[in-house]
Amino acid sequence: MDGIYDVTTLTAGQYSAVSNILSFGFASMLATTIYLYLSQARVLPKYRQAIVISGTVTLIALYHYWRIYDSFKASAHMDGETFNEAYRYVDWLLTVPLLLLETIAVLALPAANRKSLIARLVPASAAMIVLGYPGEIAAENGPKMMWGALSTIPFLYILYILFVELTKSLEKQPAEVSATVKRLRLLLIATWGVYPISYLMPVLGIDGANAFVGRQGLTIYKIARLKSAADDASYASAEGMH
Amino acid sequence: MDGIYDVTTLTAGQYSAVSNILSFGFASMLATTIYLYLSQARVLPKYRQAIVISGTVTLIALYHYWRIYDSFKASAHMDGETFNEAYRYVDWLLTVPLLLLETIAVLALPAANRKSLIARLVPASAAMIVLGYPGEIAAENGPKMMWGALSTIPFLYILYILFVELTKSLEKQPAEVSATVKRLRLLLIATWGVYPISYLMPVLGIDGANAFVGRQGLTIYKIARLKSAADDASYASAEGMH
Repeated sequence: MDGIYDVTTLTAGQYSAVSNILSFGFASMLATTIYLYLSQARVLPKYRQAIVISGTVTLIALYHYWRIYDSFKASAHMDGETFNEAYRYVDWLLTVPLLLLETIAVLALPAANRKSLIARLVPASAAMIVLGYPGEIAAENGPKMMWGALSTIPFLYILYILFVELTKSLEKQPAEVSATVKRLRLLLIATWGVYPISYLMPVLGIDGANAFVGRQGLTIYKIARLKSAADDASYASAEGMH
Repeated sequence: MDGIYDVTTLTAGQYSAVSNILSFGFASMLATTIYLYLSQARVLPKYRQAIVISGTVTLIALYHYWRIYDSFKASAHMDGETFNEAYRYVDWLLTVPLLLLETIAVLALPAANRKSLIARLVPASAAMIVLGYPGEIAAENGPKMMWGALSTIPFLYILYILFVELTKSLEKQPAEVSATVKRLRLLLIATWGVYPISYLMPVLGIDGANAFVGRQGLTIYKIARLKSAADDASYASAEGMH
């Protein structure tokens, strides 16, 4: 079927490997979500929103892993279900804007600056996902390429904001925070680097992308910890941070 | 099927016994997870991360008990599912590095020392699990032995770090903490002593290993309590500790 993985042709070994990958993703997201929710108190109140949003992103990813796994098993057992790989887009439509939101939130920028960045990043990321979806479900390469190209326009705009505009704000951040945000930015790019690959390999696609989602959650946490330590020495000394 | 337990040949008594073992494991992990999460406040803030990681490890183990039980039941009822015993490796790939991480975290060592231990223990433990997996799913004894032997290399390296390098750090810890960490170290070894057994007896394998995981979580909690009491007398007196 168009753009749909024929799950019924998998060997027992392949079926088991895909099950294990999806299950690994689910368990990682579960662990990261709970860890982030329970670690809120370890950062200053103004950074807690970013941590809660990070936990919410991994919670949404966890839910979609479960949906995809369920759809995968049901279609492999041929009980009238076809494997719905497009759940990935539902996941991304929620998680990608939130990931950008949490990246901006954790920096605790001046309000005007923050609002301006969010007002442009969030719609751009939603547009990127929405424009990618028709390409994903298209049967032919023509429309696939066209929607892929359209989806690249907001993607390039996001890159411009992250690598040009955000760089100015980073100059005012402590050195270690600035370095970690730069790594986070690369992680965001890596997440979407997985995006074209997942056109071809849906199951591994979501796993690759969401593996980065979990890492991003933990990186946001790290930035919040570093900034808490920079703002308030008691948050550093209590944890043996330098 | 290769490396797969034929669940359909079990007698009713055997099926019931395995179900009860898996259910016991699930219930123990559930209880330990909630206990650890709710007991965070009883240790000093700097030891709380170790407690939260411990709870997360038992949460991951809990999830895998449920998955394995589900796969076991589905395959016994012959509804097109084969028993996926390899979930154990997915579980271990997440929990074993985290167990080592929490062991180091609870000691609250100086940052450089801690980072160096973690940077070696975590990749070594992941390598140990990843190298064991092909042996687990191999049909013949030749590759089984080869992967088992390869997986033993990082295992020996971990033993070296825990028993030689960590011993130096223990000299600076209070006597009771040092004694408890030594017990924890033995528990870690016991966990992996179960590992070769589980090559032969998959269902009992995960139960043995995860029974130790639950104990390790509670031992980490004990160490955090002892260290809180050593660092701050108010944490001891509030609990009637000496």
